Amino acid sequence: MLHVVLVGVEGCENTGSVARVMMNFGVSRLILISPNCNHLSDSALNYAIHARKILENARVEKSLTEVINECDISIAFSRRVGQFRRRDLTLFKLGDFLKAYQNKNVFLVFGREKTGLTNEEILLCDLICTIPASEEFPSINLSHAVGIVLYELYKSFSTQKQTKDALKRDEIESTVNNIISFLTQIDYFKNHKEDRLKSLFKKFLFRADLDRMELQIIDNLVSRVKGIVKRLSC
Amino acid sequence: MLHVVLVGVEGCENTGSVARVMMNFGVSRLILISPNCNHLSDSALNYAIHARKILENARVEKSLTEVINECDISIAFSRRVGQFRRRDLTLFKLGDFLKAYQNKNVFLVFGREKTGLTNEEILLCDLICTIPASEEFPSINLSHAVGIVLYELYKSFSTQKQTKDALKRDEIESTVNNIISFLTQIDYFKNHKEDRLKSLFKKFLFRADLDRMELQIIDNLVSRVKGIVKRLSC
Repeated sequence: MLHVVLVGVEGCENTGSVARVMMNFGVSRLILISPNCNHLSDSALNYAIHARKILENARVEKSLTEVINECDISIAFSRRVGQFRRRDLTLFKLGDFLKAYQNKNVFLVFGREKTGLTNEEILLCDLICTIPASEEFPSINLSHAVGIVLYELYKSFSTQKQTKDALKRDEIESTVNNIISFLTQIDYFKNHKEDRLKSLFKKFLFRADLDRMELQIIDNLVSRVKGIVKRLSC
Repeated sequence: MLHVVLVGVEGCENTGSVARVMMNFGVSRLILISPNCNHLSDSALNYAIHARKILENARVEKSLTEVINECDISIAFSRRVGQFRRRDLTLFKLGDFLKAYQNKNVFLVFGREKTGLTNEEILLCDLICTIPASEEFPSINLSHAVGIVLYELYKSFSTQKQTKDALKRDEIESTVNNIISFLTQIDYFKNHKEDRLKSLFKKFLFRADLDRMELQIIDNLVSRVKGIVKRLSC
């Protein structure tokens, strides 16, 4: 279970935008640590759009110390990596890393818009994660950072399962056989190798990542072409 | 080379935020199609922070038609996937797919905040991509969507090397035209719509991620089939 923890958030717009992007990626638990804005203000609620419930149900606490021990793992997001702030992970690897924590309580801890998390707050967290970005201007807006992190985790967690009903090999083979049967009908294989072409067509269709309806469109087209050419032939 | 194309953007905040997140991920080319806000307003420039140069250098055009042919591939982002708006890719796979286009001009086309892209605008683009999100509230704010897409591509481009030379659009179109010319030859379009089928073939060939030799194999096959069927016909 992912929880977004905002420490000292300053802007209502950002707070509302964070709620919206949380709902976009199916995350509902928001913890605000000493917020400097009213998360139930009109501005915050307007930016949240359909995610106002996340704001209404947000938990507000005074300091990170009070909540940090409730989670199984806490990740501090920080781009300032120095002598005492060693980066443990980049976001590129966080998804893989957190797969094992899908049924655990994970705190994703984000700092203030301008100054981020303090050294003390970072020390309270288990790991430090950075979002890789251009060195020229790596400072990502708070709600955008939350959105990017939640997208990355949504991707990692959902690609474990099969996202769409993959075509079975024999469905693709049946369409390939239909194409081959047309080419046989017109005596194409007098001069060309059937096996190689069959294997190529199969690869192309697999790689095009077709769904069932798209495969059907190709299959129907081939069948119709076969019929037309048969009638045309002397 | 990635270009962000915003069609009919309404908000200055969003425009500024898009510029900021573009700079975060090292993308500098912004094209605004009939914007409904002043991208050089104080509000837009304030949200851009250090990325005001991206706004100052943004290109403004009246319609997508005027610019779409300047790119090697265009990706329309849309979450409304229906009968005539078939999703070709999800963002989960876009990075892998665009690996081959790293040195080409790629247009990432985003629609209006409220209504997205029109059917006509989508048809102008080569592929449709959706950002997977929770079904309960999948509508991601425009600048957040741009940020998530650019993060995903930044990740793919920085973790993978280019493996092959991407096909140009006109190479794929030439093969599609060859297929269409065969179908015209056998009078296929008496009962079926040519435009829809042409766009489908184009998508399939793009998605199959063919190399030049593979495309040539298909092209030669179609040409030979045309010749054979012509001779067969009474």
